[in-house]
Amino acid sequence: MDTVIVKGSEMASVIKAKLKEEVNDLFPKPQLAILLVGDDEESRRYVRLKEKAVDEIGGQCRAINLPENTTLVELLGQIRELNADPHTHGILVQLPLPGPLATEQETVLSSLSVVKDVDGFHPFNRGKLFSTPPFLVSCAALACMDIITMYRNPRGLLTVLVGDSFDLVQPLALLLMARGSRVCIIPEAHEWEEVAARADVLVVEKGRPLMVKADHLKPGALVIDAGFHWEAGRVCGNVDPMSVTGKAGWLVPVPGGIGPLLIAKLLENLLTAYREQVFAADDW
Amino acid sequence: MDTVIVKGSEMASVIKAKLKEEVNDLFPKPQLAILLVGDDEESRRYVRLKEKAVDEIGGQCRAINLPENTTLVELLGQIRELNADPHTHGILVQLPLPGPLATEQETVLSSLSVVKDVDGFHPFNRGKLFSTPPFLVSCAALACMDIITMYRNPRGLLTVLVGDSFDLVQPLALLLMARGSRVCIIPEAHEWEEVAARADVLVVEKGRPLMVKADHLKPGALVIDAGFHWEAGRVCGNVDPMSVTGKAGWLVPVPGGIGPLLIAKLLENLLTAYREQVFAADDW
Repeated sequence: MDTVIVKGSEMASVIKAKLKEEVNDLFPKPQLAILLVGDDEESRRYVRLKEKAVDEIGGQCRAINLPENTTLVELLGQIRELNADPHTHGILVQLPLPGPLATEQETVLSSLSVVKDVDGFHPFNRGKLFSTPPFLVSCAALACMDIITMYRNPRGLLTVLVGDSFDLVQPLALLLMARGSRVCIIPEAHEWEEVAARADVLVVEKGRPLMVKADHLKPGALVIDAGFHWEAGRVCGNVDPMSVTGKAGWLVPVPGGIGPLLIAKLLENLLTAYREQVFAADDW
Repeated sequence: MDTVIVKGSEMASVIKAKLKEEVNDLFPKPQLAILLVGDDEESRRYVRLKEKAVDEIGGQCRAINLPENTTLVELLGQIRELNADPHTHGILVQLPLPGPLATEQETVLSSLSVVKDVDGFHPFNRGKLFSTPPFLVSCAALACMDIITMYRNPRGLLTVLVGDSFDLVQPLALLLMARGSRVCIIPEAHEWEEVAARADVLVVEKGRPLMVKADHLKPGALVIDAGFHWEAGRVCGNVDPMSVTGKAGWLVPVPGGIGPLLIAKLLENLLTAYREQVFAADDW
């Protein structure tokens, strides 16, 4: 079987080109604020990627870097200001939060304006996933839904999700269920093989480097690798691309898979938030 | 194999006796407001059961019956009054809403005070299910969790949920995932058999009368019947109790299973809401 390698970066380019055209006609321009606490190098890298992406579509991005020892009260004060600022249409707190703030993540996410919450992490927006249509939804879950619905009709398929994250597995499970997919969630990469072998769609977030081999797959399965590891100086995911090629119907690999698409979905969420605030302020 | 028939009414009695003791020492008494729009006979019956249960533990219950033609604005106005009323600790809108209000269900649920939402149906409370610990959770999901954790440790088990409801299947899936269970959701009672045959725990909300037979089960499975049908003048569920007895390890039957337990969980939620408002008002 020929395995289609799904290029997230190409899908992202199509989305960004469309958004750029839309933003071209908008005034004021959509503005995203990114709050980064501390100086973790990986977090900084993600922030730069997001800044660059907002810039590419003609939006404006304000990255605010707060010191590592920022208190909860200070962080909430900063969020309150951005919530009230009419020039800021989207707010994103780069996770994970460092040090003692990490345990206050729910408090921080709950303090975001629901309409500016472009990550879809506010409990209210997570709770909207129980109903149709939801409002702002986690970009990782949206990226996977885009890929799945591009190649398959989810209705009746068996989708297996290995992992338990609140930004990918939990929202994706609810989105897929709403589309009539049978969804199996395996929270730990443990006893996953038996169920995975029946999966029409397999999303592997938790696991070990190159854990998923051809033997684990149903022939023709759509496989989304959502892992991220450094192995021998190279980035890899949970799926062994060499092994599964020829058995999988589609492979969304690491690197080059959902990563770039996820950022494009963030831009879409920024536009959704913008429209809600600028065009439909009276309806909310 | 001997099949244990799980008696929800006995579990409910234990919970109610404990709550009655707690309420005995409380002043003011916990007060629940139930909003019923229209005069559907089945809804009235559920409201009476809830009133009786609140009365049994020494709480106070105010059932407010609004006419069938109540407008959205009128209903939201009534909810706003109850939200602001310091004597009302819990508010419940009896579902389904009749007529044109049915399509406004999300608006109605979103208008409830988050701390008085004893059904756990407000989007914020649904969204809190993504994190640990959640706050107020749907009574049907809590009733199932009580039963599952009484007999089994969910970690590593395969739990299969047939159905897609926002009050049972969706919250229960998230609660089980948080306890390390592998969870498989089958939104329609269609192609459920293959996965169900591997289930350690099987919860059947959607289905046909007496659909689940012994042949469908893994020996020793814990089976929760969450269906409700009238067949030939008698109440039955989705599980055929005659057939599965001897194959299932535990059966939560219909009638007499989760129904009574669900109302006991509502009373627990009323007390949770009460404590939050009366004892911990400053923390919220």
